[in-house]
Amino acid sequence: MRVLGVDPGLTRCGLGVVDVARDRRATLVGVGVVGTSADEPLDARLLVIARSIDEWLDRYEPEVVAVERVFSQLNVSTVMGVAQASGIVIAAAARRGIPVALHTPSEVKAAVTGSGRADKAAVTRMVTKILRLEASPRPADAADALALALAHAWRGAAPGSPSAVGRTTAMTASALTPAQRLWAEAESKARRKT
Amino acid sequence: MRVLGVDPGLTRCGLGVVDVARDRRATLVGVGVVGTSADEPLDARLLVIARSIDEWLDRYEPEVVAVERVFSQLNVSTVMGVAQASGIVIAAAARRGIPVALHTPSEVKAAVTGSGRADKAAVTRMVTKILRLEASPRPADAADALALALAHAWRGAAPGSPSAVGRTTAMTASALTPAQRLWAEAESKARRKT
Repeated sequence: MRVLGVDPGLTRCGLGVVDVARDRRATLVGVGVVGTSADEPLDARLLVIARSIDEWLDRYEPEVVAVERVFSQLNVSTVMGVAQASGIVIAAAARRGIPVALHTPSEVKAAVTGSGRADKAAVTRMVTKILRLEASPRPADAADALALALAHAWRGAAPGSPSAVGRTTAMTASALTPAQRLWAEAESKARRKT
Repeated sequence: MRVLGVDPGLTRCGLGVVDVARDRRATLVGVGVVGTSADEPLDARLLVIARSIDEWLDRYEPEVVAVERVFSQLNVSTVMGVAQASGIVIAAAARRGIPVALHTPSEVKAAVTGSGRADKAAVTRMVTKILRLEASPRPADAADALALALAHAWRGAAPGSPSAVGRTTAMTASALTPAQRLWAEAESKARRKT
């Protein structure tokens, strides 16, 4: 499954593409950040984001686009730009018939680190490990976009879907990265609760 | 000058096109509301808005798009959708090289009614009068979009631009609608202050 993760923003919009195999092994396909300057007018900034997302969708042809769910509780001076950018990203995917999934930051953190309250450094560290990268993706927005994509791909095999259950139990702990192990454990716990 | 005014929103997005002559006389070209249901997924809703704005830009070829400036002080449950819709509208105009102007609700109210604190009914009444319509545009979002377009067109002749000053003084009071008269007075006051 190929997922494009997008951490929307006006100043920095993180974009990350991963391929995730049935055994949950994830591979980096592309990562980047689209930056626009606050000195530019809003329409020019949103146009840069619109063109970039189109380019990424055309180049990588993801099966799903995972976008960070925006909360109005954020810093009021940045939240409007984040929401405007996310609207453009979601509409661009919808135009191509690509499904869009929204995930909260805490869902993403929990998926890749095992804790919904992990800090940015911990997320970056786990993304680097999961994707077997030699260097950490920078800036944090790029790592966040990859984390979003990973979280979505792994959620695809969420507790409740029979195939996911079968797959999880068939995996041996040693074949898993630490994050995958945490995730598998979290899944088992969740299954026990339901 | 042809202006497309947009009152962005997810549930109701108001769209209004006016032609404004050099003497400030304004004519209705098109008005409508794009509605999406809260039962639909977000990507489907934003896609409807994206397609509609493209259609309006193609059909009416406005010289400027005037969009309501979104404030995060709005109701938190609706502000994100409003911002997402506005991002799509702004990017759509920017893609076509059409300039985008943002106006606050109070600027718009002041321009069409003479008071920045006018209520929705007063705005609708003045829009109906200014455009010499037989019936008021409904719902309020449609009237708001027209008010935005009018406010922008009239602002084009704002205090400070020499041509505007010449034009305002050359007009006789009897040739003006009540709103235009109020606006001309507001302009004079503003000029005196600066």
